[in-house]
Amino acid sequence: EAPFVLIAGPCQIESLQQATEVADALHGIATKLGIGLIYKSSFDKANRTSINGARGVGMAQGLDILSQVRARFGMPVLTDVHQPDQCAPVAEVADVLQIPAFLCRQTDLLLAAGQTGAAVNIKKGQFLAPWDMANVAAKVASTGNDRIMLCERGTSFGYNTLVNDMRALPIMAGTGHPVIYDATHSVQQPGGLGSASGGQRVFAPILARAALAIGVAGLFIETHPDPDTAPSDGATMLPLECMEDLLTTLLRYDRLTKQNPPDVII
Amino acid sequence: EAPFVLIAGPCQIESLQQATEVADALHGIATKLGIGLIYKSSFDKANRTSINGARGVGMAQGLDILSQVRARFGMPVLTDVHQPDQCAPVAEVADVLQIPAFLCRQTDLLLAAGQTGAAVNIKKGQFLAPWDMANVAAKVASTGNDRIMLCERGTSFGYNTLVNDMRALPIMAGTGHPVIYDATHSVQQPGGLGSASGGQRVFAPILARAALAIGVAGLFIETHPDPDTAPSDGATMLPLECMEDLLTTLLRYDRLTKQNPPDVII
Amino acid sequence: EAPFVLIAGPCQIESLQQATEVADALHGIATKLGIGLIYKSSFDKANRTSINGARGVGMAQGLDILSQVRARFGMPVLTDVHQPDQCAPVAEVADVLQIPAFLCRQTDLLLAAGQTGAAVNIKKGQFLAPWDMANVAAKVASTGNDRIMLCERGTSFGYNTLVNDMRALPIMAGTGHPVIYDATHSVQQPGGLGSASGGQRVFAPILARAALAIGVAGLFIETHPDPDTAPSDGATMLPLECMEDLLTTLLRYDRLTKQNPPDVII
Amino acid sequence: EAPFVLIAGPCQIESLQQATEVADALHGIATKLGIGLIYKSSFDKANRTSINGARGVGMAQGLDILSQVRARFGMPVLTDVHQPDQCAPVAEVADVLQIPAFLCRQTDLLLAAGQTGAAVNIKKGQFLAPWDMANVAAKVASTGNDRIMLCERGTSFGYNTLVNDMRALPIMAGTGHPVIYDATHSVQQPGGLGSASGGQRVFAPILARAALAIGVAGLFIETHPDPDTAPSDGATMLPLECMEDLLTTLLRYDRLTKQNPPDVII
Repeated sequence: EAPFVLIAGPCQIESLQQATEVADALHGIATKLGIGLIYKSSFDKANRTSINGARGVGMAQGLDILSQVRARFGMPVLTDVHQPDQCAPVAEVADVLQIPAFLCRQTDLLLAAGQTGAAVNIKKGQFLAPWDMANVAAKVASTGNDRIMLCERGTSFGYNTLVNDMRALPIMAGTGHPVIYDATHSVQQPGGLGSASGGQRVFAPILARAALAIGVAGLFIETHPDPDTAPSDGATMLPLECMEDLLTTLLRYDRLTKQNPPDVII
Repeated sequence: EAPFVLIAGPCQIESLQQATEVADALHGIATKLGIGLIYKSSFDKANRTSINGARGVGMAQGLDILSQVRARFGMPVLTDVHQPDQCAPVAEVADVLQIPAFLCRQTDLLLAAGQTGAAVNIKKGQFLAPWDMANVAAKVASTGNDRIMLCERGTSFGYNTLVNDMRALPIMAGTGHPVIYDATHSVQQPGGLGSASGGQRVFAPILARAALAIGVAGLFIETHPDPDTAPSDGATMLPLECMEDLLTTLLRYDRLTKQNPPDVII
Repeated sequence: EAPFVLIAGPCQIESLQQATEVADALHGIATKLGIGLIYKSSFDKANRTSINGARGVGMAQGLDILSQVRARFGMPVLTDVHQPDQCAPVAEVADVLQIPAFLCRQTDLLLAAGQTGAAVNIKKGQFLAPWDMANVAAKVASTGNDRIMLCERGTSFGYNTLVNDMRALPIMAGTGHPVIYDATHSVQQPGGLGSASGGQRVFAPILARAALAIGVAGLFIETHPDPDTAPSDGATMLPLECMEDLLTTLLRYDRLTKQNPPDVII
Repeated sequence: EAPFVLIAGPCQIESLQQATEVADALHGIATKLGIGLIYKSSFDKANRTSINGARGVGMAQGLDILSQVRARFGMPVLTDVHQPDQCAPVAEVADVLQIPAFLCRQTDLLLAAGQTGAAVNIKKGQFLAPWDMANVAAKVASTGNDRIMLCERGTSFGYNTLVNDMRALPIMAGTGHPVIYDATHSVQQPGGLGSASGGQRVFAPILARAALAIGVAGLFIETHPDPDTAPSDGATMLPLECMEDLLTTLLRYDRLTKQNPPDVII
């Protein structure tokens, strides 16, 4: 049975040079470990905590960079969309369109994403129960596109804090769609730094182990050559240099779970 | 000192006839009681729980109906926007643009709304702390438009449940912007009916009292001639026939608080 | 109709002199305002955050002080019990036995308290839903003692934070028992200072207004001549010197609600 | 390195015959798998949801049964204590005294348990943050007894629901005390059945996997020959007949984590 799929890359597209560097490193690791890789990076951070947060390179330049990465390494790419009219042009480059968590109930965006025929990765809103995602997925599926992934990235727990209810993984899998665990956004502390989100990078690796012990189709991990200088999500991204060791370990959990499939039927 | 402002109307615009009927009734009550009234109704329910939920009449017809209501009764109208490009055309009719809670961190929407020069009512996201709204308001204010209202409508509390932290009212008022209390969405049970949101209409009137006892600039109350047959939010909307008695009582709390201003300085 | 009952006093009994001073001041205010007063103070803080937190004067000395206060001012006293065997001796002095929130499901304590025949004020556990309190009250009522009060003092909301769900007030009133709103513990930040609980005293007065706007039988307010030097709960207790003005205002809300009873039937 | 320790048994002691049957089965499995076993069962359910919930056989009979189990199988036993004066007599039989979650801040109970010199397993209160447990453990340690275990069993998440924040495991381990994961109480739905707690037994095995993937010193699993007829916690206990297969799988995760220790330093 194939290993989990890895969706990874820096939070935002900073430059062609950086994208190429990160993609090259990840591509090398994934090839070595036999992991399917989807390169992830955003052209626009459309909902930063503060107006002063860096937005990114924009759609035109971002898609250009992603298409170069895609061509050079021959791997699929994922990026997020925020408006229905972005879906078609983005789908000309991206293999997977991602629906941000805050937007996961915006019907028009889900429909436009579905209509492209591209795969769609839907982040579970921090304000939704895992069982609510069946209705969300059905919006995309109503377009005839059932290439849907559902992604756990934490649920609101008091103020400025998220918690992963790990029961969400099998509950969302009960929809029949593959489930992705987002290890780095799950340790975000939204708004926790006043005018930016904080985070607890240290917990991402162990939570990823936990998710694989339960069983997921894929992991989502943001990574950066130097997270502490990144323009966004620096507190949660994992250093690129740690990825090979981390993935090597995570693969062992994935393999063990595939040898010992749990029999949770929701 | 003037009484609280009332933002009220049916969740969605169903027809000119119905909008006129509800606006007429509300206008009569507001005039009689000396309350400032903003008529609220949505042309598109863009984030229904399920794909099968009724979306509404659409922007063209909706704005036409709102403009007729506005002209006939000479009162301001409010409606919500979901895409940046809706802001300018909506602002030609609506006096207040409303940012839905799920969208309250979408920078482009906030900027587009601000740039119209219209007043902007921002619902606090269910996933945000009240102090996070200062950053949200600053996005709108960065356009030079400081006609901003912040609206409490509940915070995620476990699954399918919202809770009002009443401390949010003075905390958000600490931004200097008027605070609105949304009594009917606060008693929503998101996704609580499986493929629709449920609600507890019975609690809306007493929570509105509580908000006025603390002190708010305005109340947001959805109302309908026959909530149980409404196409959306029927479980939370208040029957139109109850509004006069309710507002008569609520005005007493408003008056008492204005006579006894609390000295909470955040 | 009589005004709300006030349960008030310093968090812990510090000395006869202090108890007398506080009781004298509160008795004067209550008499002047026509409010029924129950003097509250604890002889043992049995569940401090840290082992280094001051425990109090102990049961023997504490009951002695309470009995002197009771005799001198002719007013009922309330204190909390932590073990079943404390109930009978405490009930020889105290008119009301209070069940701490953490202990509100301890059956033997509830039964022992009920068996004394004294009134029993049960704090709702931070871990309980308001509707769970019907079962809690039924434990006391099973002793044949129906002199039961249910007290809202906040519900766990993420870490180190409490929130008042104001719907709890009518929901608990649905049991038929009088409901008390605890304004000062509701603004506690449990464990928020690392080795002690923090708090937000500033919000207690407005939350008390909100509770009275909804309607409660009584208020619980801890007060101290100099909260910042108090051995416990200093961050939440209200300065004694503020109490007369506060109660004067709160009475207006109480009166308004009694003139306008809400018709919430749960 | 030794495998995780298993704390297991039926929620309450029902009879000598049943205790012997369950202990025999568990002893056989543990011996076969090389797992250290502590037999767990309660003589008194002191905080049932309802007055009508079965309390148990009581301390005298309970300790007699536990001592027979202990002698017959030569294995340590654990039971919970609810009053300080229970600690000394219970410690004459039990190797581990357990502090129930609701009682985890009761200083006298913690001190009395510590003073026995027995090991003390402290359940984290549903109302506490994981970092709050350092203060709790320090109360026991102040007696000179550092044989302390800290146990995760879920945190309040809205009403009638618990969630495991898996970050709690390394955070509590940061105290230096061994951490136990309670798989069956973590899936409780407190008060969820109206007059009893419900639960989701189906999730316990996968959550136990997740905890072992992160790394814990031990697992706590309630088990029963026929959970659906058990007098308490039937909705969460695992069928005894499933235990061998479950533990066999869980050991693989434990072993993998011991081969790949995570480097989370809190």
